[in-house]
Amino acid sequence: MSGEFTIGPKLPALVESVVASYHREARITHIDRAFLPDRGRIVELVERLVELMYPGLHGRQDLTEHNVAYHVGELLPRIGHLTFEQIHQSLRYQAERNEQRDDVGGWRDQARQLAMEFLVRLPTIREWLSDDAQAAYDGDPAALNTDEIILAYPGLLAVTVHRLAHELYKLGIPVMPRIMSEWAHAVTGVDIHPGARIGRSFFIDHATGVVIGETTDIGDRVKIYQGVTLGALSFPKDERGRLIRGAKRHPTVEDDVTIYANAIILGGDTVIGRGSVIGGGVFITSSVPAGATVTFTPPELRIRDRSLTAKADADSAPSASDYEI
Amino acid sequence: MSGEFTIGPKLPALVESVVASYHREARITHIDRAFLPDRGRIVELVERLVELMYPGLHGRQDLTEHNVAYHVGELLPRIGHLTFEQIHQSLRYQAERNEQRDDVGGWRDQARQLAMEFLVRLPTIREWLSDDAQAAYDGDPAALNTDEIILAYPGLLAVTVHRLAHELYKLGIPVMPRIMSEWAHAVTGVDIHPGARIGRSFFIDHATGVVIGETTDIGDRVKIYQGVTLGALSFPKDERGRLIRGAKRHPTVEDDVTIYANAIILGGDTVIGRGSVIGGGVFITSSVPAGATVTFTPPELRIRDRSLTAKADADSAPSASDYEI
Amino acid sequence: MSGEFTIGPKLPALVESVVASYHREARITHIDRAFLPDRGRIVELVERLVELMYPGLHGRQDLTEHNVAYHVGELLPRIGHLTFEQIHQSLRYQAERNEQRDDVGGWRDQARQLAMEFLVRLPTIREWLSDDAQAAYDGDPAALNTDEIILAYPGLLAVTVHRLAHELYKLGIPVMPRIMSEWAHAVTGVDIHPGARIGRSFFIDHATGVVIGETTDIGDRVKIYQGVTLGALSFPKDERGRLIRGAKRHPTVEDDVTIYANAIILGGDTVIGRGSVIGGGVFITSSVPAGATVTFTPPELRIRDRSLTAKADADSAPSASDYEI
Repeated sequence: MSGEFTIGPKLPALVESVVASYHREARITHIDRAFLPDRGRIVELVERLVELMYPGLHGRQDLTEHNVAYHVGELLPRIGHLTFEQIHQSLRYQAERNEQRDDVGGWRDQARQLAMEFLVRLPTIREWLSDDAQAAYDGDPAALNTDEIILAYPGLLAVTVHRLAHELYKLGIPVMPRIMSEWAHAVTGVDIHPGARIGRSFFIDHATGVVIGETTDIGDRVKIYQGVTLGALSFPKDERGRLIRGAKRHPTVEDDVTIYANAIILGGDTVIGRGSVIGGGVFITSSVPAGATVTFTPPELRIRDRSLTAKADADSAPSASDYEI
Repeated sequence: MSGEFTIGPKLPALVESVVASYHREARITHIDRAFLPDRGRIVELVERLVELMYPGLHGRQDLTEHNVAYHVGELLPRIGHLTFEQIHQSLRYQAERNEQRDDVGGWRDQARQLAMEFLVRLPTIREWLSDDAQAAYDGDPAALNTDEIILAYPGLLAVTVHRLAHELYKLGIPVMPRIMSEWAHAVTGVDIHPGARIGRSFFIDHATGVVIGETTDIGDRVKIYQGVTLGALSFPKDERGRLIRGAKRHPTVEDDVTIYANAIILGGDTVIGRGSVIGGGVFITSSVPAGATVTFTPPELRIRDRSLTAKADADSAPSASDYEI
Repeated sequence: MSGEFTIGPKLPALVESVVASYHREARITHIDRAFLPDRGRIVELVERLVELMYPGLHGRQDLTEHNVAYHVGELLPRIGHLTFEQIHQSLRYQAERNEQRDDVGGWRDQARQLAMEFLVRLPTIREWLSDDAQAAYDGDPAALNTDEIILAYPGLLAVTVHRLAHELYKLGIPVMPRIMSEWAHAVTGVDIHPGARIGRSFFIDHATGVVIGETTDIGDRVKIYQGVTLGALSFPKDERGRLIRGAKRHPTVEDDVTIYANAIILGGDTVIGRGSVIGGGVFITSSVPAGATVTFTPPELRIRDRSLTAKADADSAPSASDYEI
């Protein structure tokens, strides 16, 4: 009912001003370059990989002893194709940016080899994911069984995508792993940089708001709740004031640590010792010994009984009738 | 341009190693089982239900007095079909896991009856949602009207899906309600377990990061801001060290309570008394009396004027020039 | 396999009860009204606009000097059409609610003019986004280049949609900008009200959980981390106890401020002075002078070494073996 709008005679001038801005703001323009990883294709790859990891639970439901090999035999070549294609795009994208000499055959061979290396690691990744699913079941009394965790727990999905993206990161593939992890971030609210190293039996409960930085090291059997940040304290700069990229900036979390909701742990020298328990909402920028429990000191709250005061709201100044919890 | 990749002669060995992992890691495999709720179908059901709840605002826009009955007459059978189908899948899935004897007719009859019970409750759920929409309007000065809230407020969408999923949870349907709530979690950032009991006129503002656990009880006219956790303190275990599932682990929030951003309230014995106001970022693990205001004690911050110090950053140790806010 | 469910003879009664609820709960019903912005169309518009802003990086990848003008010449009319259509719907929706006299030609002319005003501003918005992308690169050592930021950083996507929605907000378009910002919220976890004013070179790292209220003012070169709230302290009410809509309720953040993860800053009179650094997790409800560093006072944590105590868990009372961090 409101269809008759045309830009009309102003269209050429408008097109010209947009194209001019493409040249002027070249930083956010990607023209006349042949190679770029493709987000849509990478998302399809991730979905196919999740299907391969959890047969019968994601994707086709009617799998049996008899048909499962055919299913895998169909899925793997598609996964292989997408993996090769996007690794190839990513490598050549980076080469083009670095103005490396074109070497078509070489890039293809390299991409082919890296894709195969990734594919043969998939069964091992499944072993790790099996431990992660079990850790989620062991850690959450609301879980009925591991099927429910695979079907409905965003924490496991985030860890699944991370373990896949991390393999590509270790193989030196640029950009592509980060697109995978940001897809998981959008879907689960968990932001794990593909560079983070995470041990076995890792469980993230409730998921939303978790941030795990690039140079984080996490041991085995670690459990993390929603809103936890494992981040950087301040960024080392070179003598010209530019950020030094790649330095260890994020914490080390040893085996058997539990970190409750919204805790913030910062710094590349910060080590959370084995078996420690970090309370909800605490803020930590230095190391914690093994076996410690870290909480707020008790007098952090004041309660005011409003029946004793004429007027009160959440934000007014505390009065003499306050008492500690 | 990068199409010629095949796994080639290595394919059979790769397929075999993946299939072998399906047997080895059976915990994350679902093969040779007939029944499982289907996430895609459940998401379609949720979308159709949201359409039914908010006519003209979600889904078809051209509804009139004259055509609305036909619209509902078309929508309800589709909703009925999906509800029955997924309840049936969920019940038989659970029976298969529990190795209960197959009883085809019985499961169908039970699913049919439960689906009808769910359908007849839908008008009542709309009454509750109407109060929720009004509570959002009353609680947010940025809201123009309830239409805008229905079209654009993730908090209301999360509560809508919760009220629907909670009905199925009360009817004893396994897994399916949790898949519904996790869809809402992915879309809105709000994680409400379908078991949580929530009174009338409930409002979640800004939504992202809210977590409400399975055994939470919330009264009427409660208002919650982003990042609030209503969680468990520690999990009761049986004598063999296994988690006891089902015990009351999450707080009780009485009528007319407001809880500001990022507050964490934990524990099954924790009761937030009627009319209390819980300040932003506080951490509570014991009960609060009715009418109380709970805030941080004032000296939680220190301000350092960097013009007085030679070198400073956010994380360096505080100096003598610090003062309290 | 579970297809035979029909509501059967109960269908008419069920339809009737739903339609009756549409009349009874009219607050959440939108029937017999002709105009409403369409979420699906607005999402398409946002996606086309993102494509126009970042050529070659979102949408078509094969752009060259030679074909780019044709690409823009195709994209702009589609964007123009959707913009006009949804502005028209939004204006007439509001007029219908306000029971303004119908004036078809007038609304169309007004929508046409507002759509053109929006279109001619797009190149300027690109200039701002270019600075935002650079600010992200300068602020994050994990970023490889600005391409990666455009492809994979949710913070930049949220700011992009905000800058577009804010232009429509400034043009006085109702509802439509809010639907745009809520789409960004769902995808990125960042909730920026379209009314917020944000200066140049703005960077949100890790994104999830950030909330920026309607009347917030943010200067240039401000950097914000995940979970930060710039919110309202308490809502001014008129003499009849109703919320006053439109008053300045949210903070002012001056140039060159950095705000770390999960900090909460509240209140319309709260000014964060130029160059200040706000530490992670702090809670601020009054102004901070320029150049200040605001952190928790040190004794907010206690560490208990569990090897010294017989029994301990994260939540038990602190004992004499606690020490400060």
